Amino acid sequence: MLDVILPGTGGMLPSDTRWLSCCWLESQGKAVLIDCGEGTQIALKKQNIRLGNIEVLLITHFHADHISGLPGLLLSIGNYGKTTPLIIAGPKGLARVTNALLTIAPNLPFPIEFTEFTENNSLEPQSFPSLRIDSFRLRHGMNCLGYKITLFRKPVFNPEKAAALNIPVQLYKVLHAGENITLESGELITPSMVLDGERTPVTVGYYTDTRAFAEIAEFVKDCDLLIAEGMHGDETLRDKIHAKKHSMFRESAKIAALAKVKRLWLTHYSPALANPREYLPAARAIFPKTRTAHDGFKITLPE
Amino acid sequence: MLDVILPGTGGMLPSDTRWLSCCWLESQGKAVLIDCGEGTQIALKKQNIRLGNIEVLLITHFHADHISGLPGLLLSIGNYGKTTPLIIAGPKGLARVTNALLTIAPNLPFPIEFTEFTENNSLEPQSFPSLRIDSFRLRHGMNCLGYKITLFRKPVFNPEKAAALNIPVQLYKVLHAGENITLESGELITPSMVLDGERTPVTVGYYTDTRAFAEIAEFVKDCDLLIAEGMHGDETLRDKIHAKKHSMFRESAKIAALAKVKRLWLTHYSPALANPREYLPAARAIFPKTRTAHDGFKITLPE
Repeated sequence: MLDVILPGTGGMLPSDTRWLSCCWLESQGKAVLIDCGEGTQIALKKQNIRLGNIEVLLITHFHADHISGLPGLLLSIGNYGKTTPLIIAGPKGLARVTNALLTIAPNLPFPIEFTEFTENNSLEPQSFPSLRIDSFRLRHGMNCLGYKITLFRKPVFNPEKAAALNIPVQLYKVLHAGENITLESGELITPSMVLDGERTPVTVGYYTDTRAFAEIAEFVKDCDLLIAEGMHGDETLRDKIHAKKHSMFRESAKIAALAKVKRLWLTHYSPALANPREYLPAARAIFPKTRTAHDGFKITLPE
Repeated sequence: MLDVILPGTGGMLPSDTRWLSCCWLESQGKAVLIDCGEGTQIALKKQNIRLGNIEVLLITHFHADHISGLPGLLLSIGNYGKTTPLIIAGPKGLARVTNALLTIAPNLPFPIEFTEFTENNSLEPQSFPSLRIDSFRLRHGMNCLGYKITLFRKPVFNPEKAAALNIPVQLYKVLHAGENITLESGELITPSMVLDGERTPVTVGYYTDTRAFAEIAEFVKDCDLLIAEGMHGDETLRDKIHAKKHSMFRESAKIAALAKVKRLWLTHYSPALANPREYLPAARAIFPKTRTAHDGFKITLPE
């Protein structure tokens, strides 16, 4: 199961009505955070999120509204007692930018491991074994990445098969975790003897800060959830939004339809957009399973 | 007149109940901001403050809760249309730390002028002519400064004196601004001929993040307002607070009494301090004109 939550849904500038856009994904006490603008650590606290569970921090790009909360966030993660490595992954230049910001957050109690995605490529964190992160290049005013998060799920354990093989109940866990066991009789039991077939992984696509283009749909194809930029829904503002290299509601709805995702959440709203729901019908006309997210929006996948 | 406002009163960690401590001082459309932790720009917006009025940003020290909001704040100041220089003043190392943080806020539309206070010394900003800022060294875990803000006030214009000298009304402003005029009769009129005596300047002392020590009182002597750290009021926590180099309610009340200031506001509360008013009586027993500030606390001086 993967819990997905949007503690903030605002774009460009922090406001007193929306926290800056970010996304927390957690499974079995291990979590990934995408982006950390100014105030993200407060937004996370408001959702009662356990900061110490973070294994990976993904940064989409280096505009301040997506990274300026980094020093405070890392200090707070340290206060929550983390001592194991934190992976910080993002575009080329990430280590340089992060180290500059760490001028005001020296002496963290955990090490940082950097991953810089140079082209579309993947990360499979050792500390979060069932997870894969794929990155894809967007079209913004600077190098900016979207992500696909894949959570692989263990096959279902079949207790009937296990009972038929006279396996002691206390060893079920070991087999389910993928290890072989040897019974007292000397018989070798492998996981495949007691597990049912593979389960479909859970997939979440995430992108903000980009002009819309068709290749995004290929990347997030069939995702269980697509979280996508909806800077604004008012089509009279389209040229202005495009000039700043952002996406409109209907453009993300088109990508969702093209990608045949199961559901679409819009986020990263313009500070000038007071009521995103006003433009929801137009987006739903293109992709019916669209929702306009707000701070605290959440789901557990698969639903 | 000097408007003083505390948009935030929290110490150490940003929380969802208090913004981080900062202070906005404004006179005739020119302003000074002391400190800018994570979220300060949002706290300022909540108080309907005009960011573009800022002339001087004072930093007390480089702990993240006092400076991590700097990149976002400067970007927002730029969005408000500022193109004239911004003075950023603070302890030694300020330019290095600020420039590191500006990695995520390049290309600001206004120049920055740095002032690094090395010992107790003063700044008289050209762009804010009636203002003087004095700095004083505190005793914290790192180099940390307190400040005294002095607003000099023009002498009162005496229209009776001016009328007796047959000065045209439209020239009153010129004389009040300190310039000489020559009447049509050829008579030279100097400001001292139409102004009453000097008025007492308005003074505000500000310090947080320090162990209390008697010399602070000398520095803020007779201030109209002292804004001082009250990390906590619970005396059973004193050793813990002292170990982290912070001040208790009663310690700041003692300094206020010693300095004979006109009023004391406590700020920079511990995140663990839910209700500062609980400890107000004990502080007032030492200095009766003590108040426990909260976000949005304000006054116009002289009152």
